[in-house]
Formats: sequence, structure tokens, C-alpha cells
Amino acid sequence: MKLGIIGLGLIGGSIAKDARTSGFASTIVGYDKNKQHINEALSLGLIDNAETIANMNATVDLIIVAIPVDVARNVVVDLLNQESGIATITDVGSTKSGICKRIENHPKRQMFVAGHPIAGTENAGPSAAVDHLFNNKTVILCEQEKSSKASFDLVKNLYIKLVANIRLMDAEDHDRHMAYVSHLSHISSFALGLTVLDMEKNEKTIFDMAGSGFSSTVRLAKSSPEMWTPILEHNSEYLIPALEQYIDQLQDFKTFLKHKKTADIYQLMANANEIRRILKGDIQNG
Amino acid sequence: MKLGIIGLGLIGGSIAKDARTSGFASTIVGYDKNKQHINEALSLGLIDNAETIANMNATVDLIIVAIPVDVARNVVVDLLNQESGIATITDVGSTKSGICKRIENHPKRQMFVAGHPIAGTENAGPSAAVDHLFNNKTVILCEQEKSSKASFDLVKNLYIKLVANIRLMDAEDHDRHMAYVSHLSHISSFALGLTVLDMEKNEKTIFDMAGSGFSSTVRLAKSSPEMWTPILEHNSEYLIPALEQYIDQLQDFKTFLKHKKTADIYQLMANANEIRRILKGDIQNG
Repeated sequence: MKLGIIGLGLIGGSIAKDARTSGFASTIVGYDKNKQHINEALSLGLIDNAETIANMNATVDLIIVAIPVDVARNVVVDLLNQESGIATITDVGSTKSGICKRIENHPKRQMFVAGHPIAGTENAGPSAAVDHLFNNKTVILCEQEKSSKASFDLVKNLYIKLVANIRLMDAEDHDRHMAYVSHLSHISSFALGLTVLDMEKNEKTIFDMAGSGFSSTVRLAKSSPEMWTPILEHNSEYLIPALEQYIDQLQDFKTFLKHKKTADIYQLMANANEIRRILKGDIQNG
Repeated sequence: MKLGIIGLGLIGGSIAKDARTSGFASTIVGYDKNKQHINEALSLGLIDNAETIANMNATVDLIIVAIPVDVARNVVVDLLNQESGIATITDVGSTKSGICKRIENHPKRQMFVAGHPIAGTENAGPSAAVDHLFNNKTVILCEQEKSSKASFDLVKNLYIKLVANIRLMDAEDHDRHMAYVSHLSHISSFALGLTVLDMEKNEKTIFDMAGSGFSSTVRLAKSSPEMWTPILEHNSEYLIPALEQYIDQLQDFKTFLKHKKTADIYQLMANANEIRRILKGDIQNG
């Protein structure tokens, strides 16, 4: 099995690591628009050889497109357009309906599998790649019926080798859920970072007074704007209402604080505490 | 050195652990309004004996009041009122100006040291106590000039033994900074938890799709309402404007998303990225 990876960052690099050690891929070639990333990926042993996008498609079995979602769409279309292309193509983007719509009528649509492994850190680049990143994480695969069985099974087998849990989902459902469970978290964290930076001009005070709570809540504010700008833009349809609901919740806190409605503040927090049970996996419905 | 602890939870219990292993305290007695917590603290070896609030003050050198900030105020006043009281008294609350104002004219004000160790987790109770919780964390001590030198030095020495970094601060400054760097984080997290719980009625979907990003951002939503309701209430003067600024930042994201102002969204995130450098301790001013 020969694997090609376009985008040698955290996700592409981490897939390379486990695809190799699990035995899924015997050879891995890669491309990144940043030449330094190619060199790093070579010296870290993530890839065996560098390869151009043009040549990759005729020589590998599977191509992972692991680049920001706006560029990914174009690259996927370019790959499908290549007449010599024989590889199955999959992406890892945080939004799925845009890319699916973009290629829905492409004659080679069935060579593409829409994927989203829900894993990552706030770090970027080949050096951010880690072993076992997808171990016991969820991977969403969308529009199974539009991929050929061979292509779908190939991508499914990759993620099985990476010890991920596969869940099938409609692309629109995926995007709606991600708006709440992922994209909103990022905005809440970016906005928290901005608020504190705005108010606290003394950096030493932020450093000294930041407990583990602030560090945890603001962690996603370290995320890459290159990656996140197109995600937020592509998912604005679902994200804007999510953001509005979030702001409403914050307004409730503010109103209750202003009017010293202590019992109401307590109740909001007690309700939010339910998230502890759910994140532990103690599911009461579903 | 005999130590008394009122409130055998995460903070009180963790102080007990390190006070004992560091050799700061030879005997530790404790009180908690919850009898089960007393029993747990005894069986975990956090305290040697249970003791009433009434008796503690006449028999120990130092009392740590580690209970929610609303009750803490009353208990500190009660302790100072005890004629037989010989102990230095310190608290660990997340708000400082309220308790300082409450006792500013008390004839025994100098027996009290206003403290706030900035450390913790989202867990509660004696079983949440951990070793080395304060190691290399910041402890804010307020209004040094209103404590006797003996009392102040005793509390300072405790935290030195706990390997914490002591920083002196005005009580109002403390509360203003905490509104941004801690209390706002908690509200942002509680509100995020509420928004997701509200929208995602299927708990399995939350569990499956929650990446480490959501888990990190929503972690503080697991925090105790008993502890956090009075903190937010007591610090509403500084917290309401902080919350307003936070909502403004979120509104900016929403406006830019609505009008597809991609460059502006990118710039907000790039600005927020500065928090990475500061939290690493690479301080450019301060």
C-alpha cells in the first residue's frame, strides 16, 4: 500500500506515523507548499520521499488531503480532474458539506471519501505530529453512498488501523454538530484570549495569575488562523446561530449577576455540570 | 506547628497533604460541615483529628479557612471574635476585597492574612486533594500592612514550604485581575456547556464528537456551583464589565462571519495567538 499525504502538518504527519507503524502503508510520499515542512517531514521520517501533487495521483493507492478546508476543496477537484489519477482521495477537514457539494456532480466523485478524524492539538507543522493521535478517537465519514465500495473500504481500513472509532453521518448533520461541539469552543477561546489581552496590559500579571483553569479554557486560542479562518467561514450557516445561543447564555449570566439572582446563577451552573457525566461516557440517551 | 483546616475539600485537603510532608505542620486538625468529608479526611490521613471551629482557635497556631467565600467571611469574623483565639487565620478565597472590607475595623484584624493560592482542579471534596498542588503556582497575599508581622510571616512560610511563588497585591487589584483571568473563564465554560447541552439532545453525539478541544474548553463547567456562585456574586462589580467585553468580542466574530469579513476574522485569531507566548512565560513587559 502506497500512501500520499498532501499537507505535512499535525494531522497529515500523525496519520503518516501510525499508517507506517501499523503496517497500513509500506511507502509514504508527501507534499507541502512549505518546503521547510517537506524537509522536516523527511528528516522526522514521516515520509519516504517528497512528491508533487501532479505525480502523486498516478503512483499511490490513497491520498490524504490534510490542508486548510478552503484550499482542500480546490486540491480535491484538481486531483479528481487528473486523467491519470488512480488513487482514492480522502480529506480530513472540519467542515464536510461544502466539499461534498463542490464535487457532487464530478464524474469521479466515487473516488473521494469525505472524512473528519476528530483529533488534534493546538500545535501545527510536522514537528507537532504525534503517535497514536487517533487511538480511540471518533472519525466521521460522510456520504458513504457516494463513494465506491473499494474507496470507502480503503479509508475505513486506514482508520481501523489507526484504532479510531468510525461513525457515519450526513455531511450537513456533521457540520451542524461541529458548529456546537468544536467550532464554538474555538471562538469562545479566541474571544477569551482577546478579552484578557485587551484588559491586562501587563503580561507578567497574566502569566502569574493564570491558573490551570484559564490555561485550559484559553488553550484553543493558540490555534492556527490559517486553518481556522476557512473552517469558521465555511460553517457560518450553523455557527452564527450557535454563537447567538452562546451569547444568550452569557447574557443570562450577566443579567442574573446584575440583579443578584443568586439562585438562578447557581441553577445555570448546576445544569452545566451535566457535561461531566456525558464526557465520562455515562450516556443516558443516544 | 499545629495546623487547623476548616473545609476539607480540594484546597484544604491539598494544603494538609503538603503541610505534613514538607514538615510545616506536625499535627493537623480539621473541620467540615459535611461529616462524611471529615471521615474521608481522617481515613485519607489528611487530618489527625476532627476538631470543632469553637475549640480549634485556642489550640492551633494557624487556621486555614478553605470554604466558599460567602461562608468564609462569616467564619473568619466568628474566629476573630473568639476571645480565647490565639491562632493566625488565613483564607484561600478567589475574591479578596469583600472579606478585607468586612473585617477592616476588627480589633483583631492583624491576626488575619488574606490569601489566594491560584491552584485547583474542577473536582471537589477530600478525595480530590492532591500532592504538590501549589508547587510553582502563584499565591496572592493581600493587605500585608494590616496583618501582624508574625501572622504574615507564618502564612508566607506555609506557602514557601508548599513551593509556591508569593506575590503581594492590593485586594481590589486582585479582584479586578481575577475577574478577567479566572472568573470570566469559568462563565465562558459554563455557558459553553449549557449551549451544547441545550442544542445537542443526543448525549452520545456529544460524547462521540467532543474532541480534546471541547473537553479542554468546557472543563471548568464541571466546577462546583456551591463554590462558584458566591465568587461570581462577590466579584460582580469587576466581572460584569469583563463579561460585557467578552460578549463584545464574540459579537465581533459574529458580525465578521455574517459579512464574510475573512481578513478580520483571521486578524482576531492572530491577535489572540499572542496568549501562547505569554503563557509560556516569554514576557515582553511586566
